[in-house]
Amino acid sequence: MHVRDEIWKRTAALRIHGGRIDVAASLYRFAPQPWVDLSTGINPICWPVPHLSSALYQRLPLAADMARMTAAAAEAYGLPANAAIVPVPGSEIAIRLLPRVARAKVVGILAPTYGSHAAAWRDGGAEVHELNALPELRRHDLETLVVVNPNNPDGRTIAHGDLTAFAQAWTMTGRRLIVDEAFADVRPEASLLALPKLPAGTVVLRSLGKFFGLAGLRVGFVIAAEPDAAIWRGLLGDWPVSGLACEIATAALRDTAWIAAARARLAADRKRLDDVLGRAGLKVIGGTDLFGLFEARDGVDVLDHFARAGILVRGFAAAPQRYRFGLPADEAAWQRLEVVCATLK
Amino acid sequence: MHVRDEIWKRTAALRIHGGRIDVAASLYRFAPQPWVDLSTGINPICWPVPHLSSALYQRLPLAADMARMTAAAAEAYGLPANAAIVPVPGSEIAIRLLPRVARAKVVGILAPTYGSHAAAWRDGGAEVHELNALPELRRHDLETLVVVNPNNPDGRTIAHGDLTAFAQAWTMTGRRLIVDEAFADVRPEASLLALPKLPAGTVVLRSLGKFFGLAGLRVGFVIAAEPDAAIWRGLLGDWPVSGLACEIATAALRDTAWIAAARARLAADRKRLDDVLGRAGLKVIGGTDLFGLFEARDGVDVLDHFARAGILVRGFAAAPQRYRFGLPADEAAWQRLEVVCATLK
Repeated sequence: MHVRDEIWKRTAALRIHGGRIDVAASLYRFAPQPWVDLSTGINPICWPVPHLSSALYQRLPLAADMARMTAAAAEAYGLPANAAIVPVPGSEIAIRLLPRVARAKVVGILAPTYGSHAAAWRDGGAEVHELNALPELRRHDLETLVVVNPNNPDGRTIAHGDLTAFAQAWTMTGRRLIVDEAFADVRPEASLLALPKLPAGTVVLRSLGKFFGLAGLRVGFVIAAEPDAAIWRGLLGDWPVSGLACEIATAALRDTAWIAAARARLAADRKRLDDVLGRAGLKVIGGTDLFGLFEARDGVDVLDHFARAGILVRGFAAAPQRYRFGLPADEAAWQRLEVVCATLK
Repeated sequence: MHVRDEIWKRTAALRIHGGRIDVAASLYRFAPQPWVDLSTGINPICWPVPHLSSALYQRLPLAADMARMTAAAAEAYGLPANAAIVPVPGSEIAIRLLPRVARAKVVGILAPTYGSHAAAWRDGGAEVHELNALPELRRHDLETLVVVNPNNPDGRTIAHGDLTAFAQAWTMTGRRLIVDEAFADVRPEASLLALPKLPAGTVVLRSLGKFFGLAGLRVGFVIAAEPDAAIWRGLLGDWPVSGLACEIATAALRDTAWIAAARARLAADRKRLDDVLGRAGLKVIGGTDLFGLFEARDGVDVLDHFARAGILVRGFAAAPQRYRFGLPADEAAWQRLEVVCATLK
């Protein structure tokens, strides 16, 4: 028991965020190189960024460049007639700023979910209630409700019809609804953006980070009706994303052939992931086509087992037996995963 | 008079912000191509960005990458012992967010200056007093004072000794001082960051946009003591700039040879600009090594004159006879400037 407590303590940083390859490498110095990072829900095969003119580093994006990017986003995501798209330098910043825009004293968050939402509202002085389902409409103590849909890490997805009916009723009394659709690109039918009209006070977040695999680009979008959209524009100014990011995002969002092919590949890879991990005795709990959530038998520290072999997966401090696995990038990574799985049982 | 009013109205958008080449091109359809953009204070010869791995688009910057970048910034700018550097996705966003972090009802701004400061505070609900010199210390109605140093567009620079003495006294009664040092790279001796200790409540802004010529990169820094720095970190999250931007900024800030050479070149080019425009009858009013502010004789619309020749300069709605000229990027641009100057008199 002592050894396991020790491991648990040492690896605490790996159960807070994904992607901390540098921390993993310093904890597991004898792990084989290179590390295979399965600790995020990011598409490992990103939209293929072409070589771009260095002029894009120099000049500020023009208003016309921004307009082209938001038009491409509207085309790719859909856009309710009363809503506007405001680019943000990564949806994380939008999450952090939401409590400054949509002030609320009491906030409900569908949990468990991506930790930044609760952290941002608590930093903003709000009381956060973690809920395990959509609240009853009479919960008038909650001024704002945050839903990640599809959810991370369990993939829970509220069907479009259910969420839109709820959104209409919930916001009718002036309450806010925030829907983080960071993973909706693989479930476009679930997006609130398919609505002809966004209910007043609803804010939807989208991102280029996950599905397009461009997390390093820091491009996201806040979609809201006025006056919210104007407040976001005022907060972020005329050049919220870099010229380079604007150009890349526009081309990626317009690439319907790549989008269709990526959806098909991710779905196939996710099936393969379930097969591989299922054979190793891990039970599928949920996920999306970008990641799976698995449960291990009691007594097996899956994070430690894979980290010793140079494969980083995501653990959760609050759910010690659950692990999120992203998709391997290539056949070599799949092979390493399968080999390490064979020694798990 | 009628024609001049007409021109004035048509070119209004060119007297609000620099860099609006697309607007200029649509207004002056018969101007020779390519446009020479002298409407910004951005170094036209940017730090030479190498070809970078597309992996930087994919992964989030690591905490260690961010730490390397802020260490490089501390080395390049200097850093008071009690202060911390928080990266921001462009200092414009910091300017917009300042009223949310440093709440104040009444704000003083040394004017005329970059318009975003006043706009952001007014958007945040503050009463803005435009001052033409540092206020007397007994001005206790002002909770916050904003100083751009060196100033844009006139280059007014408060000497280090004067500003530090003022900063100590001003902040002693709990008032805030915000110093936007976007142009301080060409006047490093004027920076507040040379202080061993930053006075409590002082916030300094720096940026990669102007001197390094990387405006399209959207990298800036907020420098503040705790608890302010922690508030900024909380607002912006763990990945405030892209992986690519982080890598480029780190290398640029460490390139002391380029920095020294760029300072020398900019100083020489600024002298040449004064000579060229002086011969054309424009009077130097001020500036920095990145731009000059010039005054024309009454009755000459300099913006219109140069725009007809495909050269965009910056006009000011509030100062019709004043024009800001940035530096031409190459000999061809200098030649075009000189030719058009010859027809100005």
